[in-house]
Amino acid sequence: MVTVAIVGATGAVGAELLSVLDKRRFPVDRLVALASARSEGSFLTFRGNKVAVQALTAEAFAGVDIAFFSAGATRSREFAPIAKAAGALVVDNSSAFRMDPDVPLVVPEVNPAALVGHHGIIANPNCVAAILTVALAPLERLSPIRRLVIATYQSASGAGARAMEDLQVQTRDFLEGRPVVPRVLRHPFAFNLFSHDSAIEDNGYNGEENKVGDEIRKILGREDIGISTTCVRVPILRAHSAVVNIEFERAVSPDEARAAFAGADGVKLVDNWTSNHFPMPNEASGADEVLVGRIRKDPSHPRALNLFVSGDQLLKGAALNAVQIAEALLTR
Amino acid sequence: MVTVAIVGATGAVGAELLSVLDKRRFPVDRLVALASARSEGSFLTFRGNKVAVQALTAEAFAGVDIAFFSAGATRSREFAPIAKAAGALVVDNSSAFRMDPDVPLVVPEVNPAALVGHHGIIANPNCVAAILTVALAPLERLSPIRRLVIATYQSASGAGARAMEDLQVQTRDFLEGRPVVPRVLRHPFAFNLFSHDSAIEDNGYNGEENKVGDEIRKILGREDIGISTTCVRVPILRAHSAVVNIEFERAVSPDEARAAFAGADGVKLVDNWTSNHFPMPNEASGADEVLVGRIRKDPSHPRALNLFVSGDQLLKGAALNAVQIAEALLTR
Repeated sequence: MVTVAIVGATGAVGAELLSVLDKRRFPVDRLVALASARSEGSFLTFRGNKVAVQALTAEAFAGVDIAFFSAGATRSREFAPIAKAAGALVVDNSSAFRMDPDVPLVVPEVNPAALVGHHGIIANPNCVAAILTVALAPLERLSPIRRLVIATYQSASGAGARAMEDLQVQTRDFLEGRPVVPRVLRHPFAFNLFSHDSAIEDNGYNGEENKVGDEIRKILGREDIGISTTCVRVPILRAHSAVVNIEFERAVSPDEARAAFAGADGVKLVDNWTSNHFPMPNEASGADEVLVGRIRKDPSHPRALNLFVSGDQLLKGAALNAVQIAEALLTR
Repeated sequence: MVTVAIVGATGAVGAELLSVLDKRRFPVDRLVALASARSEGSFLTFRGNKVAVQALTAEAFAGVDIAFFSAGATRSREFAPIAKAAGALVVDNSSAFRMDPDVPLVVPEVNPAALVGHHGIIANPNCVAAILTVALAPLERLSPIRRLVIATYQSASGAGARAMEDLQVQTRDFLEGRPVVPRVLRHPFAFNLFSHDSAIEDNGYNGEENKVGDEIRKILGREDIGISTTCVRVPILRAHSAVVNIEFERAVSPDEARAAFAGADGVKLVDNWTSNHFPMPNEASGADEVLVGRIRKDPSHPRALNLFVSGDQLLKGAALNAVQIAEALLTR
């Protein structure tokens, strides 16, 4: 008898969690759907059954075995320890505990061993970090990575279901000649792009950029990798992409990289030169695999390769990775 | 009495050329509007006068003083020498002559001296190369640049007026639940992005990427700069953006870079950390200046900075730069 709670059940990631749990036949005997008070009384459907959404309270975790948190860092900081104390294993999709040295930050294809000796809370990485580490791990096994220069193309979904809806509303307004009024993120989004909406921190990088670097290092277990990240929101609905320039300890050939991807879990090689077919968000959307391609030697550095990556922000970037963590916990 | 011809007068760049010539009070006593045979008989308006579009023929260049070519490399290769033989100065927006050692490739803010001793044809750079060299030249004056790692966010306009229209048609279809059918570029464009549509060349880079690197080196007069470029089309209408990682000979501080931009022609600094306001295509569109911002030290390299750039593809990336070249020629 497994009781599963989802905190943030009515959000974009919450909806994907339900879908992924169902699709992967995760053993859910009872589902506890939790959200903010304003969603209380609404209903979700899971495996054909109506599930009432309850307000997030300490009492809600009684009898819960696994709790997926996806309702922001503030709620995780308050309620994840409560869920843990009630006996639940917590898989937390927020940034609250990711850099805590006592909390494993896990991408199951990359660092499953980090789950050993967890203390009841496992952190699910930032979406860009999860997607990129799946693509980087097979290369890191060929030669240690020294430096990454990353430029992202991030979708609206990373800012939640309302941002996805607002992108569509703004775009419709633009096409029909009406004024474009941003209602969720700060800047116009219709046919526009902008520096990631997280606040700029003291080093001049925004919160997202700092997370991506810190989390890639923690997941790969390589505190010494130099990482330069620029995070940009583009008018795409739900898949993140990135250009990644990778400097290795030793020169890695594009053919070696392709062979490594061909044998790797969670990665799909899309690298067709003749048809100009490479990773694209529309093909990454809904896919479990991270798409990788445009693998080529960097002419400006003897030990560097370039790579283009697209991955579903809501799946590998959030819900799928969280469920994979839970699956790994259950099999232990 | 100055007679100006525009080859490709009915295209996206042609329309901008007319608008820029007018706005900058370029001395046009007679305008010869040339296009393919299928546009013959149509009319354009310039400074309130109707101008009949003529078919592109060798005879059309009689009496022409300055000819702007923007109808693709094939037509430039055939007709630019004819226009030159007829006595016209040619400003060519195609790639036909850009890498010809006898042809200056000019961004007037960057390398105006390259115009000296021209042989009647001056090449207007690739849009990304023009926009980026305006941003890079003030930094190159602080310290020689050693290496560039570039990721672009390129708009539909670079593929012409039909691609801009098709992006809007596809987006409307997507929003209304109709099938999205690409009619100009190969891949779906509505809420999607893809590797640049130019063909992949032997080195694994597409034509656009190779142009960007080659032309930046030629414009900056620095054959030794190492350049890694990844060109991506994003669902934006008419401004190109880029993340640029710049490695210098000596460490350049963000403050030095900001001061250099503040005093530079053709550049506008948009770098507001507190309001998260940085270069965006919607603000670059219609602007003569290239917007630069997100200037910060690269934590992964002691002598590198990161930069984000947005510039109007049809203006500084094409028509404006071409007219600026013609202005410089006229004042000689």
